[in-house]
Amino acid sequence: MGKEKKDNKKKKEKEETRQRALSKDGPRVSSFVYGCWRLLDDPEGSDVKRIRSKIDACLESGISTFDHADIYGGYGCEEVFGRAIKDSPELLKHIEIVTKCGIMLVDPARPDNRIKYYDHGGNHIIKSVERSLKNLNAETIDLLLIHRPGPLMDPEELGAVLDHLRKSGKIKHYGVSNFTVSQFKMLNSCTDRKLATNQVEMNPLHQAPFLDGTLDYMIQKQIRPMAWSPTGGGRIFNDSSEDAVRVRTAVQEIASRYDMEPDQVLYSWLLMHPSNPAIILGTNRPDRIRKAVESRSRQLDKQDWYAIWTAATGVEVP
Amino acid sequence: MGKEKKDNKKKKEKEETRQRALSKDGPRVSSFVYGCWRLLDDPEGSDVKRIRSKIDACLESGISTFDHADIYGGYGCEEVFGRAIKDSPELLKHIEIVTKCGIMLVDPARPDNRIKYYDHGGNHIIKSVERSLKNLNAETIDLLLIHRPGPLMDPEELGAVLDHLRKSGKIKHYGVSNFTVSQFKMLNSCTDRKLATNQVEMNPLHQAPFLDGTLDYMIQKQIRPMAWSPTGGGRIFNDSSEDAVRVRTAVQEIASRYDMEPDQVLYSWLLMHPSNPAIILGTNRPDRIRKAVESRSRQLDKQDWYAIWTAATGVEVP
Amino acid sequence: MGKEKKDNKKKKEKEETRQRALSKDGPRVSSFVYGCWRLLDDPEGSDVKRIRSKIDACLESGISTFDHADIYGGYGCEEVFGRAIKDSPELLKHIEIVTKCGIMLVDPARPDNRIKYYDHGGNHIIKSVERSLKNLNAETIDLLLIHRPGPLMDPEELGAVLDHLRKSGKIKHYGVSNFTVSQFKMLNSCTDRKLATNQVEMNPLHQAPFLDGTLDYMIQKQIRPMAWSPTGGGRIFNDSSEDAVRVRTAVQEIASRYDMEPDQVLYSWLLMHPSNPAIILGTNRPDRIRKAVESRSRQLDKQDWYAIWTAATGVEVP
Repeated sequence: MGKEKKDNKKKKEKEETRQRALSKDGPRVSSFVYGCWRLLDDPEGSDVKRIRSKIDACLESGISTFDHADIYGGYGCEEVFGRAIKDSPELLKHIEIVTKCGIMLVDPARPDNRIKYYDHGGNHIIKSVERSLKNLNAETIDLLLIHRPGPLMDPEELGAVLDHLRKSGKIKHYGVSNFTVSQFKMLNSCTDRKLATNQVEMNPLHQAPFLDGTLDYMIQKQIRPMAWSPTGGGRIFNDSSEDAVRVRTAVQEIASRYDMEPDQVLYSWLLMHPSNPAIILGTNRPDRIRKAVESRSRQLDKQDWYAIWTAATGVEVP
Repeated sequence: MGKEKKDNKKKKEKEETRQRALSKDGPRVSSFVYGCWRLLDDPEGSDVKRIRSKIDACLESGISTFDHADIYGGYGCEEVFGRAIKDSPELLKHIEIVTKCGIMLVDPARPDNRIKYYDHGGNHIIKSVERSLKNLNAETIDLLLIHRPGPLMDPEELGAVLDHLRKSGKIKHYGVSNFTVSQFKMLNSCTDRKLATNQVEMNPLHQAPFLDGTLDYMIQKQIRPMAWSPTGGGRIFNDSSEDAVRVRTAVQEIASRYDMEPDQVLYSWLLMHPSNPAIILGTNRPDRIRKAVESRSRQLDKQDWYAIWTAATGVEVP
Repeated sequence: MGKEKKDNKKKKEKEETRQRALSKDGPRVSSFVYGCWRLLDDPEGSDVKRIRSKIDACLESGISTFDHADIYGGYGCEEVFGRAIKDSPELLKHIEIVTKCGIMLVDPARPDNRIKYYDHGGNHIIKSVERSLKNLNAETIDLLLIHRPGPLMDPEELGAVLDHLRKSGKIKHYGVSNFTVSQFKMLNSCTDRKLATNQVEMNPLHQAPFLDGTLDYMIQKQIRPMAWSPTGGGRIFNDSSEDAVRVRTAVQEIASRYDMEPDQVLYSWLLMHPSNPAIILGTNRPDRIRKAVESRSRQLDKQDWYAIWTAATGVEVP
């Protein structure tokens, strides 16, 4: 075997160890996922060059998975991202695209919507996926997520349309976001393939999924969650509520002791959880992207992990 | 095939399309069910003639299922209904009788009861069913429901007595009312046949079963709920609480836009739910009965459905 | 068969009827279990003679199971109990030892602990069991319980170490304490044998396990709970909160009517529950131990059972 081949093999292995399947038949994703919901809020703009610089920062850092939703940026983020794809279609060989559907926003882009609601009907889901593909300039969605559950969701109709989209090649995998365990089981019983993931909010200030069975169930079924808002949407760094201040103080003390950035401490905190979440980053700064992934190799002490947990609840564990 | 046969066949088909099974081996019930708990509160009285006029209004409207409980009307409603049956025993060929047991009221009719409690013991359940059969002048109960779960309920004893009653022919099917998912699973694991239904409160002001997994589980297991208090026991029309006022305003706006009665809007709202509930009507007015069933053919817009949901919560969906 | 043999057989049968398995393959325990968490709080001291007098009072009363935890008495109770075992090793043939692990206390005996936290890691669990065996002067633990669940608990690692300890003979059975249903299912899916029990708080002032599915699930799976704090840690007899006063009043009225001690009423109340709990007694007085077990033969009226339940909630059942 020549040197180049060996190097390629090594490089490939390195990439593969960074990418892991979300579930048995689910898609492989990188351990950090780039969240695109703030793409249009970047003070540096959102032209193709700027978008491309962030994609490159991700790829250089081992982040190959990009998380979208039809509604992000007022139904605008997919299109902006898609312009970078149109400019360099070869990117599609190196990235995985996640997108979502089902939320109906009151927005100038959707004049028919009189109220914020959910549409889990077959017609809407198909239309939404076709629009996402067009916006993203992609042939297929690697992972489609139902963005939110809703009381009017018919799992039989929804399951059938997810399988239809998979068979037609428009999507490769499907999953959900923000589902309770019983909603997950209900929809899971109506699809040919198992749901690949449940994307939920996970951070010290949002302990519900840690306590209400959501993550227990996923661990038991060996389905990894995707974690949105790993820093509580920034609340942990900016908020003046008592619990946010307590968590911030604990995180800062630990960060200084370990010589880490506070956000890295929060990523390490999540990566230590046995559910093995894929963590969604929302920053618009390429340097923060590069910095974030370093926390992959950092392990907190169990007592530090519980110090953050306890700071959030305000009382010691029982 | 002669004309009469054809007409009979058509009529039968029509009736059949109105009647649907609650679950795989469960009883067929009409999509609206007449609730008998207010039979004795009718200002027009409760003599055989009046009761019969309501039964006839139901049958003419495709309502063939009548919902009782031993305790309704201070242990009196079954007997009053039974007088109409005694007067016209052929009615039993055209109707299905649901009744319930297990609640012990402090009531002059039950001098032994010192406190409101539940008795899920075999002796009481058998005695209660035998008393219901006698009061109703019926040979069998089409569907017996355990009225409420209780912390002292022994599912092994209760499951055995339900099967005993079924085998003896005193009841044809059994189910429960107001059970949580775990109580449902527990009792279901102790009976030979599957529980046919869970009769629960369902209306915009009582969102618990829509959110806590009760209806998710039933949808997954293809068991239809029976919905009691579809109008919140009238709260939606009379109450001055903020949530009731908001729902009333939303329902009235929709009713006027669709040219429907407000209660019809609420029935349509429930009929659109994927759990396919059989809706229990509680009115004593034959004209209201006839009017109610018309909502079967009316479909609200999804946005209107969520407008009512959102009016109840007071905040837009997440 | 000689008289002695007959007597021995009778005595054995009597003992056996008192001891019942916690679950299908679980350990047999006595219907009352002696809880050792207050061993060091005894005003009469905790020398070998005093400990032995309590062990004897238990054995004479049919209590053969002793409930420990590494942390009880500031990591000191196991050792005090173990001195009585060292003094009379033959006791081990007549008793079953339960102990627990996983809680890390801030305590002079554990100077490394900076914060109260949980350690469910393999290393700690093994170390803790080995220390318990040494303290107790025992060759094996009859039943090891994971003391508390925790958000950082990895069920795969924990399940593997429990099976490792069982195969090595250091423990005979394993179970959990204070677990939710989903935590129980999660860990249960990662062990070769089924979890033998869930030790939970059960008393009229702590209705959660009666209502949240914990006991429903155990009844369904035919796993008996162990009930800690059957008298609410004494709250029912001493506390001045409204619910405690209401329960105390109801219990006293019933006690006087049945000619029982108030604590006996509470034990009978628990023994009537269909989950068949093994009840953990915490008294340090041998006379109270002997008195407690008499409640085994006393059965309350269902209305009295609900009178206590209703006193706790403050409202009649729905």
